[in-house]
Amino acid sequence: MHKLKRYEKLADEISALIRQGVLAPNDRIPSVRQACQAYSVSPATVFKAYYLLEDRGLIQARERSGYYVREHVRQPLAEPAMQARQPGATEVDVSELVFSVLGSLRNPHTVPFGSAFPSADLFPLARLARSMGQSLRQLSPHAIIADQTDGNPELKRQIALRYMVSGVLLPMEELVITTGAMEALNLCLQAVTEPGDLVAIEAPAFYACLQVLERLKLKAVEMPVHPRDGIDLGSLEHSLANLPIKACWFMSSFQNPIGASLSEASKQRLSDLLHQHQVPLIEDDVYAELHYGFQPPRPLKSYDTQGLFMHCGSFSKCLAPGYRVGWVAGGRYTQKIAQLKLMTTISPSVPTQAAIADYLQHGGFDRHLRKLRQALEQQQQAMLAAAARHFPESTRVTRPEGGYFCGSNSPNRWTR
Amino acid sequence: MHKLKRYEKLADEISALIRQGVLAPNDRIPSVRQACQAYSVSPATVFKAYYLLEDRGLIQARERSGYYVREHVRQPLAEPAMQARQPGATEVDVSELVFSVLGSLRNPHTVPFGSAFPSADLFPLARLARSMGQSLRQLSPHAIIADQTDGNPELKRQIALRYMVSGVLLPMEELVITTGAMEALNLCLQAVTEPGDLVAIEAPAFYACLQVLERLKLKAVEMPVHPRDGIDLGSLEHSLANLPIKACWFMSSFQNPIGASLSEASKQRLSDLLHQHQVPLIEDDVYAELHYGFQPPRPLKSYDTQGLFMHCGSFSKCLAPGYRVGWVAGGRYTQKIAQLKLMTTISPSVPTQAAIADYLQHGGFDRHLRKLRQALEQQQQAMLAAAARHFPESTRVTRPEGGYFCGSNSPNRWTR
Repeated sequence: MHKLKRYEKLADEISALIRQGVLAPNDRIPSVRQACQAYSVSPATVFKAYYLLEDRGLIQARERSGYYVREHVRQPLAEPAMQARQPGATEVDVSELVFSVLGSLRNPHTVPFGSAFPSADLFPLARLARSMGQSLRQLSPHAIIADQTDGNPELKRQIALRYMVSGVLLPMEELVITTGAMEALNLCLQAVTEPGDLVAIEAPAFYACLQVLERLKLKAVEMPVHPRDGIDLGSLEHSLANLPIKACWFMSSFQNPIGASLSEASKQRLSDLLHQHQVPLIEDDVYAELHYGFQPPRPLKSYDTQGLFMHCGSFSKCLAPGYRVGWVAGGRYTQKIAQLKLMTTISPSVPTQAAIADYLQHGGFDRHLRKLRQALEQQQQAMLAAAARHFPESTRVTRPEGGYFCGSNSPNRWTR
Repeated sequence: MHKLKRYEKLADEISALIRQGVLAPNDRIPSVRQACQAYSVSPATVFKAYYLLEDRGLIQARERSGYYVREHVRQPLAEPAMQARQPGATEVDVSELVFSVLGSLRNPHTVPFGSAFPSADLFPLARLARSMGQSLRQLSPHAIIADQTDGNPELKRQIALRYMVSGVLLPMEELVITTGAMEALNLCLQAVTEPGDLVAIEAPAFYACLQVLERLKLKAVEMPVHPRDGIDLGSLEHSLANLPIKACWFMSSFQNPIGASLSEASKQRLSDLLHQHQVPLIEDDVYAELHYGFQPPRPLKSYDTQGLFMHCGSFSKCLAPGYRVGWVAGGRYTQKIAQLKLMTTISPSVPTQAAIADYLQHGGFDRHLRKLRQALEQQQQAMLAAAARHFPESTRVTRPEGGYFCGSNSPNRWTR
């Protein structure tokens, strides 16, 4: 993990103030001398922090006058309110709607607000291609067979290393490599539910979560999501106490679609609740690497002492879209998940696994991630500014601290 | 399709006589002059046919004496008999057994007779790597997104071309690219069944077919398979008339595990039966390209005039193991299958699809296939010879005309 340097921490804190609107556009930020005094740091630290913020498009220098917050949002739009959900379980019937929305994307005059496909130009495709060439030259014929059942061992080692630095000490045997996170999420849900079971999900939820529940004939119990703080834990506590919930499917960080993140305290409480009721968690954490601040969020998985949480990740959002390589750290359900995978797709592409393993070893993943996070943060600001300029004043929008999304918190529209 | 030349046809016919034991090891085959007279062909045709048979390891020249059948099996083992199955539907409970067998493969002292993993040395991995490099250089960032939903268009075109020459005129829109044939088969079954439904399968069946039925909580109705002629159509007719069968999952050619193939007449009758009862067919045809004779088998799909048959294929067995690229031609179920795929794995790896598309265009697929078929046929002969030499005389074994398997026709062992 990136060890947070003092100037990075400072830049991070000022970033947060700007994102939260404490520092408004055209506000002057503290001079270097003021900052040195106020934060007890050296001038070099302040300079480096301000250069970083400038580089990230958040502030600009004005000649002989100091640094100012850039005019990213003249009049910021308000944050949406959390919407109450009626308690109880409902069947899901959403697929036709989703497919009609996805189908509309073929119309080049449609601007797609709905799905998480960033520009492929943001990803190191040429460097990945070199890794693919390298790994195909080295791939032994024997590995072609072995990696289909067990997954590429170097890829698993690299993933386990990243877990280690984000605070999860994970035995490699807990990892199952999958055809993207979507397969991992599907397998986890099949591992712990039967048709007709109740599953706690977020409201609003990632649309594919609704589709998977529909496909597996599971019933949804909706947990309202606060636009900044994430799942409403009071609702969760009440539902766990009163309904036979068999699993939870939650995104702890930069939630799709509204971008909410749970605080550390909330993660602890949520974890305690699930342990108390012995309800397994499926943690969809595909945006974890896309934090705008320097500090990566801790996954809920890191609070799990009982193997009850399944943590699903992917390289599709942060490195290699289209390569279709994801994984799950399956806790006590690992063997069941691995068996289900062998019965459905057997294995993700072996060359693609090897290419990503090579890139993680030699390609400069952390350098790429820093650039990607900056680009996404700048795009968020441009989007918020454009929304403030062109959308009605009543528009509500969130300001997530990572990921792809600005959400506007409409409810799940699928209750029969 | 390879247009059958006269000398290839002749070689094919003599191959069949050798495989069936009409021509025994050390038998002299007709001299060139005899053959010219008997089959009304030119000496050049006979010479070319004999060179081919020599090349395939079936005959050898002895100086000043002519051509002789090679000593592949001194005393061939007998063919197994078809085993009757009790009629009716049964639940499937096989996974633990399958996983314990698969697990035993990790023991290097175990010789794996059970699963279809050929030597990776038989495949053009280096040439595929070049195709991967070529296609990654040409892959547009836009294609990374587009190919995830629709599949690589050039790959679909190449697959449609191969269908065309094997007698199936297929609109490209009917093709869904999948993570290997295993995903295709899973999706097809989900598209046409609900938990508890009855599905007609073969006895003995491919073990993964039993696993999929178990996973989807479907009930199996077993059709006895004749070791040479394939599914017993009398049993099928009876079951279709008396049981509410919702789908059939059959392998028409070189069936796993015993290698049986349906005759053309049987395919027509099977097709008529399914049309009459309006029962959809899932045709697992992953060994289609591995025919030892020159003429490829016609798929059942080519007899379907109503979009009722789903035809599943793969490059895993004939070109690129570990790449995990398969497909289904889904007939009237295509849209449903495509939607289920988007809900479970979204897409197979985009680079891998592109690499195989490039190979099919430029890599010399037909040349590779001819070599692969020869190698497999020679391996079959070596295996049969070894079995005759080392196994008990009571051993029964099939002599399939293509594919990976020699079967010994034990029943499905999983009925509760």
